Amino acid sequence: MQEISSIVSTSAPLLAAGRRMRRTPYTARVEAAGCRVFSVYNHMLLPEVFRGDVEDYHHLKTHVQVWDVGCERQVQIRGRDAASLVQRMTCRDISRAVPGQCLYVPLVDEQGGMVNDPVMLKFSDEHFWLSIADSDVLLWAKGLAAGLRLDVDCREPAVWPLAVQGPKAEDLVARLFGDEVRRIRFFRFATLAWQGHPLTVARSGWSKQGGFEIYVNDWALGERLWDACFDAGRDLDVGPGAPHNTERIEGGLLSYGNDFDNGNNPFEIGLEKYVHLDRDIDFVGRRALAAIRERGVTRRLMGVFIEAMQLPACEQGWPVFAEEQRVGEVTSASVSPAFGEGIGYAMLDRSHWNEGTALDVLVPGEGKLRARVTPLPFIAPRPS
Amino acid sequence: MQEISSIVSTSAPLLAAGRRMRRTPYTARVEAAGCRVFSVYNHMLLPEVFRGDVEDYHHLKTHVQVWDVGCERQVQIRGRDAASLVQRMTCRDISRAVPGQCLYVPLVDEQGGMVNDPVMLKFSDEHFWLSIADSDVLLWAKGLAAGLRLDVDCREPAVWPLAVQGPKAEDLVARLFGDEVRRIRFFRFATLAWQGHPLTVARSGWSKQGGFEIYVNDWALGERLWDACFDAGRDLDVGPGAPHNTERIEGGLLSYGNDFDNGNNPFEIGLEKYVHLDRDIDFVGRRALAAIRERGVTRRLMGVFIEAMQLPACEQGWPVFAEEQRVGEVTSASVSPAFGEGIGYAMLDRSHWNEGTALDVLVPGEGKLRARVTPLPFIAPRPS
Repeated sequence: MQEISSIVSTSAPLLAAGRRMRRTPYTARVEAAGCRVFSVYNHMLLPEVFRGDVEDYHHLKTHVQVWDVGCERQVQIRGRDAASLVQRMTCRDISRAVPGQCLYVPLVDEQGGMVNDPVMLKFSDEHFWLSIADSDVLLWAKGLAAGLRLDVDCREPAVWPLAVQGPKAEDLVARLFGDEVRRIRFFRFATLAWQGHPLTVARSGWSKQGGFEIYVNDWALGERLWDACFDAGRDLDVGPGAPHNTERIEGGLLSYGNDFDNGNNPFEIGLEKYVHLDRDIDFVGRRALAAIRERGVTRRLMGVFIEAMQLPACEQGWPVFAEEQRVGEVTSASVSPAFGEGIGYAMLDRSHWNEGTALDVLVPGEGKLRARVTPLPFIAPRPS
Repeated sequence: MQEISSIVSTSAPLLAAGRRMRRTPYTARVEAAGCRVFSVYNHMLLPEVFRGDVEDYHHLKTHVQVWDVGCERQVQIRGRDAASLVQRMTCRDISRAVPGQCLYVPLVDEQGGMVNDPVMLKFSDEHFWLSIADSDVLLWAKGLAAGLRLDVDCREPAVWPLAVQGPKAEDLVARLFGDEVRRIRFFRFATLAWQGHPLTVARSGWSKQGGFEIYVNDWALGERLWDACFDAGRDLDVGPGAPHNTERIEGGLLSYGNDFDNGNNPFEIGLEKYVHLDRDIDFVGRRALAAIRERGVTRRLMGVFIEAMQLPACEQGWPVFAEEQRVGEVTSASVSPAFGEGIGYAMLDRSHWNEGTALDVLVPGEGKLRARVTPLPFIAPRPS
């Protein structure tokens, strides 16, 4: 249990079963591969650990992993007003996106609060997918569309992404789909055939190790493609894996529900470069974000180094203190093999968000640990 | 593990920890009380089992239980257009509801698909709560409000319900809040003080054993109220508990995500009495539901008796056959001590939904089990 402490509570609760926690086409394979820890993401099972937290981490950074990210649901928006609806949902200008392009699009509500931070896939001006984090974006899209009487169809298509991540990902995916995959640029996608099935393949994924996401649109294909990845990748040391908490913090990736939620605006979480108030675009939270920009934010998500060689799972915000004054909370953290100490994100008051500020973090079971503020993303560490 | 097989997978996976699976004010107490099984509901932890599936069941039907249902989030809708927005969200006429009244309100989208089935609490014409099942109704409300430019404020207030359920619930709650609670009628609520804190107390809850839901609006009060329930209820044999899968199926209660979802309309799941197409009300899915009523539905959720004295957790729909023809799927099931056999819900094709129809259910690990159709709710069983 020590090995997986950064993502499992010390009480090691069991996860109840039921259709409300939906299985994916890959769940049976994931179980057979030894996964014993899951979370629930978009009402669907998300595997978390296979061989162990640290072993999975090194494997991801060295070889290639196959991830069941079926829980990364798609919100499909089609119709004459599709581009108009997607633009209203995000503060980022999507007008220059071309078919075949992925775009990271922060979604904001009428108060400028974050709704989700999906990757948009543009198929055409009348056909988009939002590949979402853990909130029911479909309801937000449907609500707006109904209220505005837009000519669109919004639905969750039968698509379950399978991610292939790691330094050898391109080699593995090329063995399945051909060398065409090598020509797919970062955050671009193409439709490629596997055993006669046309599938959307994007160079993307929730790691910084490179790789692809394969948007599997046929349940029955899931296990066959999973097996094919393992058959084709034996000499690449392919293994099962999952989005990794340590690796994603090292890489500066934020997690909706962990590091921010509907109570945060994009300026607080370092997404100001995607707030295009200077462009002539129409989106729901425009007025609210303009007001927030005008008055400035009073707290901000920053990186923190924490002096620790072990850390428990961050189940609640860990209070952050300067002297005895509470100045924020840690939202995610893990011991980083690459940095040789704890790293994490912390939402910090303006008075204490400057680089190098010395802080104390109150960690359950560990007491107050010394920490210091660092900008995001983390500066490239020494090789691990 | 046998004891809790109806709600835990045979692989007994662990639940990962992180802020994305939010704790409630009661989680520490729930853990201390021995809960080892949780699900995730509205991005929050929901305890599932304490002393064992069967023991919890009999205790609930005999004594009184305290439930951490903090995950039953509130969507608060306030403002001049609040009543108008709530009405647009539901096919049920809410115009006759009075302040202090609870109302079960199926929410439907523009296609007549179910969005959620919350209990509405009406405080005034300009102040409602929707006490929701497991989907992000807040995003649906916000989307509609933004699109329609309604004068409302929609938010998730800091409220975590604590339920007190069971035949002795009234006695226990009266000891805490005074005999006034005895005058609260079913599906009515009042504001009552506990140790100087005014709290909304409703006679409601997700069991058929009677009881109350206490809408705790102060995190720090949570553990104190939890403890007070146990201190006051010792001679009533008060115990920790949770919504119980067997008891709720016996009682005919449906679960969003298990028995129906956005792909189902109210007619398919027996909610036609709440579809008020004959009233002069304006709601989003009106046209779609009128069309569905006109053409009729081709499948329907029915009760099934299953000849079994043990059943695994229903993690995926169990296929239902008549001869060799597939005619539906079981959505939830459990062995009922009261009925002395398996009971469950099944979505069945019109050709096979009539009472008494003989069916076979393919249950993982058990093979094909004989079953027969019965109307919902189940006919009162012999006393257990």
